[in-house]
Amino acid sequence: MRNQENKKKLVNNWFNFIQSQICLQFENLEKNFFNKNKRFKKRIWKKSNNEEGGGASYLLENGKLFDKVGVNKSTVSGIFKKEFRSKILGAGHDGKYWASGVSVVAHMRNPKIPALHFNTRFIVTSKEWFGGGIDVTPSQKDKKEKNMIHSKLKQICYNNNKDYVKYKKWCDKYFYLPHRSEARGIGGIFFDYEQKKWEENFKFIRELGLGFIDIAKKIILDKNKLKWNKIEKEQQYYKRGRYIEFNLLYDRGTKFGLNSGGDIKSILMSLPPKAKWK
Amino acid sequence: MRNQENKKKLVNNWFNFIQSQICLQFENLEKNFFNKNKRFKKRIWKKSNNEEGGGASYLLENGKLFDKVGVNKSTVSGIFKKEFRSKILGAGHDGKYWASGVSVVAHMRNPKIPALHFNTRFIVTSKEWFGGGIDVTPSQKDKKEKNMIHSKLKQICYNNNKDYVKYKKWCDKYFYLPHRSEARGIGGIFFDYEQKKWEENFKFIRELGLGFIDIAKKIILDKNKLKWNKIEKEQQYYKRGRYIEFNLLYDRGTKFGLNSGGDIKSILMSLPPKAKWK
Repeated sequence: MRNQENKKKLVNNWFNFIQSQICLQFENLEKNFFNKNKRFKKRIWKKSNNEEGGGASYLLENGKLFDKVGVNKSTVSGIFKKEFRSKILGAGHDGKYWASGVSVVAHMRNPKIPALHFNTRFIVTSKEWFGGGIDVTPSQKDKKEKNMIHSKLKQICYNNNKDYVKYKKWCDKYFYLPHRSEARGIGGIFFDYEQKKWEENFKFIRELGLGFIDIAKKIILDKNKLKWNKIEKEQQYYKRGRYIEFNLLYDRGTKFGLNSGGDIKSILMSLPPKAKWK
Repeated sequence: MRNQENKKKLVNNWFNFIQSQICLQFENLEKNFFNKNKRFKKRIWKKSNNEEGGGASYLLENGKLFDKVGVNKSTVSGIFKKEFRSKILGAGHDGKYWASGVSVVAHMRNPKIPALHFNTRFIVTSKEWFGGGIDVTPSQKDKKEKNMIHSKLKQICYNNNKDYVKYKKWCDKYFYLPHRSEARGIGGIFFDYEQKKWEENFKFIRELGLGFIDIAKKIILDKNKLKWNKIEKEQQYYKRGRYIEFNLLYDRGTKFGLNSGGDIKSILMSLPPKAKWK
């Protein structure tokens, strides 16, 4: 058995690595196909109490492939406010936490390419667990693409003895707008509170990160040459309105960020650059 | 002393009246200055349980004066879910409520004219009270306008023995984005839980509604001829992003609506038609 400090270090290192890989691959996609000079901008932030950690946020905006893509990694610790403790597993006693994670949201210029979301995290309170997932939000139907995404996710779960059906259902349940009786997107997988078998979970987390790059590239390369029109772009703006509603009304990651002294610009990087409501 | 059913009836009638007045005046402004054929569209909705009321929502979109303005009135009743009861005054025991209100949000085409918000409501649980307010969200500074608005609100409060300073502070505190340490706009007045002196409060509510029309017309007539440029419009889109963050993350009216089986389109009419984030 590894000790907890060792686990934290391994996870933190992995998250740094996968963040750099995702940035590298996304930047190459943007540069190779469209715009040689487009680069991620890096921003380092620290919690107001320096000893409680911080993060590095990479943002690429106004690209020809990406309207906006954020690739954020943070490692923070501290003590939750009393009101919030009951909402976090194992934090009820003293509110102490340590959390590290990588989070990616990509809003594409071409409305035929769906918005992509990936997150993996390791959280330590009086308990310790992994969580994460991959999900996809198109503004146009594409059954073939949906099948491809789900079959790849199924494979990753299968390779790691994870219950794909359970994770898929969890995703559908989580990314749901009850006030509209509407799913945010076409789902994917979502999981949380994975406490047992640390080594296996850590392997799964790693393969999911690499799998995300694989899936994202496939989606993008299949579609980046497709023409689109103004009506399709408008549909994307309205879909993004729903994305914003979900993230601000319901998303637990957003609430966690706001309750753990996270960096606002990084927490809200998930918001698209432009959205519409009717 | 009036009995409660009588109060409900009077309030409901007033809200119908002030809604029609606001629509008439706003439609005239739009038609007289810009677009003779632009009209509010009316939409009637009922709660899924018909006996629990509903509302009438008036929406004018894509005008030359208004990008989007909603003038909503609803009268609903029912029983709050257990989780929500502790958050509503007097609902802890059995969760029963009756609520009626008028709510107006105007997002202007000209970015030099601020977004306007007005709401008055009468809520009955085991207690009964009035609440409401007027507040203004410019995307450009205008000290003269700010002073005009606050002096008119001060006058209305003074005429009705209401504590303007208290209501002004309440407004500043309420319309605040803690995650950005930023006010939503330039304030106004906000009040809630006004339980005593029903007749006086009802008179205040009425004068506030008429005062809103007066203030809105003054703001609009002072500025509707002013030229604006693309940069100013962009600033307005970013300010609207903050407006959305506030309304979805914090606004109690939004949460009340979502928890009382309200009509989604009406609850979210406060969202601007288009917004940006950077």
